[in-house]
Amino acid sequence: MPRVFSGIQPTGEPHIGNYFGAMQNYVKLGNLYGKNSIYCVVDLHALTSPTSFDRELLAQRTFDMALANFAIGLDPQKVTFFVQSHVPEHQELSWIFTNITPVGDLERMTQYKDKTEKLESIPAGLLMYPVLMAADILLYKADTVPVGEDQTQHIELTREIARKFNHAFGETFPEPKAEYNRQALRIPGVDGNGKMGKSKGESSTIGLLEPLDSIWQKLRVAPTDPARVRRTDPGDPDKCLIGDYHKLFSDLPTIELVYQGCRTAGIGCVDCKKLLLQSMTEHLTPIQERAQELRGDPDFVRDALSQGAREARAIAAPIMEEVRTKVGFLKL
Amino acid sequence: MPRVFSGIQPTGEPHIGNYFGAMQNYVKLGNLYGKNSIYCVVDLHALTSPTSFDRELLAQRTFDMALANFAIGLDPQKVTFFVQSHVPEHQELSWIFTNITPVGDLERMTQYKDKTEKLESIPAGLLMYPVLMAADILLYKADTVPVGEDQTQHIELTREIARKFNHAFGETFPEPKAEYNRQALRIPGVDGNGKMGKSKGESSTIGLLEPLDSIWQKLRVAPTDPARVRRTDPGDPDKCLIGDYHKLFSDLPTIELVYQGCRTAGIGCVDCKKLLLQSMTEHLTPIQERAQELRGDPDFVRDALSQGAREARAIAAPIMEEVRTKVGFLKL
Repeated sequence: MPRVFSGIQPTGEPHIGNYFGAMQNYVKLGNLYGKNSIYCVVDLHALTSPTSFDRELLAQRTFDMALANFAIGLDPQKVTFFVQSHVPEHQELSWIFTNITPVGDLERMTQYKDKTEKLESIPAGLLMYPVLMAADILLYKADTVPVGEDQTQHIELTREIARKFNHAFGETFPEPKAEYNRQALRIPGVDGNGKMGKSKGESSTIGLLEPLDSIWQKLRVAPTDPARVRRTDPGDPDKCLIGDYHKLFSDLPTIELVYQGCRTAGIGCVDCKKLLLQSMTEHLTPIQERAQELRGDPDFVRDALSQGAREARAIAAPIMEEVRTKVGFLKL
Repeated sequence: MPRVFSGIQPTGEPHIGNYFGAMQNYVKLGNLYGKNSIYCVVDLHALTSPTSFDRELLAQRTFDMALANFAIGLDPQKVTFFVQSHVPEHQELSWIFTNITPVGDLERMTQYKDKTEKLESIPAGLLMYPVLMAADILLYKADTVPVGEDQTQHIELTREIARKFNHAFGETFPEPKAEYNRQALRIPGVDGNGKMGKSKGESSTIGLLEPLDSIWQKLRVAPTDPARVRRTDPGDPDKCLIGDYHKLFSDLPTIELVYQGCRTAGIGCVDCKKLLLQSMTEHLTPIQERAQELRGDPDFVRDALSQGAREARAIAAPIMEEVRTKVGFLKL
């Protein structure tokens, strides 16, 4: 059975891009692989961005991200779900990997170059990020890593680190493979400026837990197919982000209705958006209700994370023991 | 009362340069500050050199270095003495510091530049070495660090990291001060080629636990004051490494005897060396006998290190708890 590892950034409340791009996939993989699906809110990685230097914000975002995952139906009893900083073996293994990773390989990472391009002073955490990520994955001997395509280079480095460790200290780690979720790349921002993403600000995103009237305010002003200037112009729903959202949220009859209606100018954009809001309401309401329930029962989230950390450490313990012996730490 | 931290490289059996330069000082500080004298065999730092990638060698050297310190009279009941890898909080804190340390500061370290000058591929561990060192010291809120002068820059960086953490997350760490032991720099190698050091090979060093006949073979061929060509030439014992060693090992009457004898050509170099061997024998025999005893009782060393790791973690635990809260890791 494959062992899956995925790290989840503690960005607070996720948006529907995260939801369709990653979170739904966690549930699916969890149903397939149970406790071998290992998910981790990576608060240690969040520290590489100084905007996280706010103790209340980071703790709150970590909690909220766990809550959101549980709200969509990820069952902490079924999978292994925890917070990275609760399992210090991540840093322990990371230091060991630091010693078999060339500085030059880290400097060559595209994400590092992108993130540091405009910085006057570069925190070393940005350089060491992929080493900690390799430790995240290999600490559990995970072989399958669901990620976006922007992580290809980091996964390749993880494989290289596994090979180097195996070469220096004896066969220990598998070489994990990336499993791409291409849907993640296709979800456009509601402001029409490319992919939905937190870094572009709230105006581009639709929060998974965002109140539906707030979502409607965004849909109402969202751009549609620019070729459709007048109500009577036919449009192309494949060139319209409202069309894209229908494909995610609506059932087949609704999708057929709006596609045909758009192409024949049978329905206007406002009606099309109202139908979308209806589909979103049906889809998101149970999730938002469940989230509300969990907010009223924070012990559920905390207990689940405690239990998750214990489970993660139980998987990691014999692997770290093997690593410590192979590296040559004195055994007492 | 000051809190002292010092890291000891697991170079296996130490030489008399280590002994007079550092180890004797550990005993002295231990007598003054008891459990507030924290000494740590830094096997995690040793990994920054790929020559340590040998599991049996590293474990053996770690054990031997602990044994040698106990043999010279460091009492593990009195001080806090442990092995770095047994306290994973070192790596945990190190990752946090990585995020407040600029890459540029690390690249500017003289020791980094020296060590990497001739390397084709630089392991990232060499770059991150001073960050782990800062974590070693601050994990215990140590304020006093006995080191050689070559560590001045690293201690300054540790102070900078303490300031940055305090600034970003609230007052937490003291700014530790280096305490230099100048004697360490003055002990010449027995082959006459500068300071005694492991990196120059066995021929330059006299091992603390080296058999006395092996020591004699090195003394016998050791260079003396080059001005003393014939037996009848007077010499200058201050320009002779045998004279330097007498100052370390011999009692005052012997030192006066050989100094005067050398200056007046009253004694020859071979006689002077024989007197030195006698002083060394008196000084080293009890240490070597104690080391022999400890080799026959490895459980003593292992139990002391277990106890030491527990003591170190007990000091570190509330400090790490404070750090985790201040940084914003979710508390369960």
